[in-house]
Amino acid sequence: MLEVEPPRPLVAGRRLACWAVEGIGEVTPGQDLALLCRSPLQNAGGLEPWDVVLVTHKVISKSEGRTLLLEDVVPGDVAVAIGQRVGQDPRMVEVILRESRAVIRAEPGVLVTETVQGFICANAGVDRSNVGGGSEVTCLPLDPDGSAASLREAWLDLAGGGPLGVIVTDTFGRPFREGAVNVAIGVAGIPAISDHRGLFDERGYLLHASTIGTADEIAGIGELVMGKLDGIPLAVVRGFTWSGPEAGAQALLRPEAKDIFRR
Amino acid sequence: MLEVEPPRPLVAGRRLACWAVEGIGEVTPGQDLALLCRSPLQNAGGLEPWDVVLVTHKVISKSEGRTLLLEDVVPGDVAVAIGQRVGQDPRMVEVILRESRAVIRAEPGVLVTETVQGFICANAGVDRSNVGGGSEVTCLPLDPDGSAASLREAWLDLAGGGPLGVIVTDTFGRPFREGAVNVAIGVAGIPAISDHRGLFDERGYLLHASTIGTADEIAGIGELVMGKLDGIPLAVVRGFTWSGPEAGAQALLRPEAKDIFRR
Repeated sequence: MLEVEPPRPLVAGRRLACWAVEGIGEVTPGQDLALLCRSPLQNAGGLEPWDVVLVTHKVISKSEGRTLLLEDVVPGDVAVAIGQRVGQDPRMVEVILRESRAVIRAEPGVLVTETVQGFICANAGVDRSNVGGGSEVTCLPLDPDGSAASLREAWLDLAGGGPLGVIVTDTFGRPFREGAVNVAIGVAGIPAISDHRGLFDERGYLLHASTIGTADEIAGIGELVMGKLDGIPLAVVRGFTWSGPEAGAQALLRPEAKDIFRR
Repeated sequence: MLEVEPPRPLVAGRRLACWAVEGIGEVTPGQDLALLCRSPLQNAGGLEPWDVVLVTHKVISKSEGRTLLLEDVVPGDVAVAIGQRVGQDPRMVEVILRESRAVIRAEPGVLVTETVQGFICANAGVDRSNVGGGSEVTCLPLDPDGSAASLREAWLDLAGGGPLGVIVTDTFGRPFREGAVNVAIGVAGIPAISDHRGLFDERGYLLHASTIGTADEIAGIGELVMGKLDGIPLAVVRGFTWSGPEAGAQALLRPEAKDIFRR
């Protein structure tokens, strides 16, 4: 076991710690996810004020019943046509289209849409898994900010009444750069964006990066500790403090009119 | 002071810690940055094998002499024309064009280029600061992977011979999402990308996010602990372990032919 204790003393805001929370088993539709996670959270040391809990969207989707069997999907003509173009199962494309407001790019091997929640990502965030001979697909939670808020409300007592942040994560690809990264798709209790506009640093430099996607940067840490292979859907980030009004992940979505890469 | 100790025991790979390293003063051209950071790194508790040191690009640019005064720049005709279109000082645009291979988008308020290093970002990563009545601009390091490799080599003894990662960071905006995030522009000693292709998780799910931009996720942590206002250019991440061949930040750049959002 590698020793990973950082040196002391360290002031909050200058130091972060993040750990995965183990012990959450398979999640099934209708289960009370908040309740299911309470013991694991307590066993991993509990929560404190200013903690941020990261939850991968998949367990939320499952508890909210956002799964279906591909065998039950009948693709329409548009799904069949797009499926041929992009090279995907037309039933999968049908689900993706139902989960989308708009198709952004449909090319061989690539289907990027704007989801009903407003995210722009591959396959509308729909994951396909092989389960007992069939094909189960998992869609994104319908209201990830709402899901985050519900979990936060249910866990607030564990953190002594807060402040407490909850961030629902998914792994998105992105233009220009290889490698997907974890991003925030639902945020509660913490501003999704930090606004530094108009501030100068101690040497008089105007800060050029005016707003920071804080919740996305925090989400990224979760990917590093949860890994991709272990089915661990929960992590805690400690040491980050925040100010400013609470804002959900919807604040991370650039309006279409402002987005030069959608034109 | 907020207590940010995570509970124990915690296994590496399930837990991360990150802290800012203070005590690096103003960096001037020609200074030996690696040497300048040794005492601060040691004062902050030193380094250990498997640590990753994050360095904001600006101090590297300064030590490498990648700064100039806007007053010394004479804009060409193209810079004047683009400056009018995007609403920027033509001297600043001239510097941006010199730092770029290609203009990706030039619209009112937005100038996105592909830099000579291959990054796609606003203003070719050129920062403008007001210094003593003049305007100093700082360009990206010419070879950030090389800069990261040099720093790593110089600090390897502090980490007991390694493994040691060094990541050079900058703050980039991105399509579709509001809020800039820290990304890796130089990487040494650690794979910039983790490759999970073809792996299944413990429940038999094929992993849909095949490669992960690990170095970008680690870079994001740095932004959270270094902040934007404090002029702290250094942080240490402990607890992440890696395998696979070393790959620099160039591995994070999607080839133009594969990038559907450049067309």
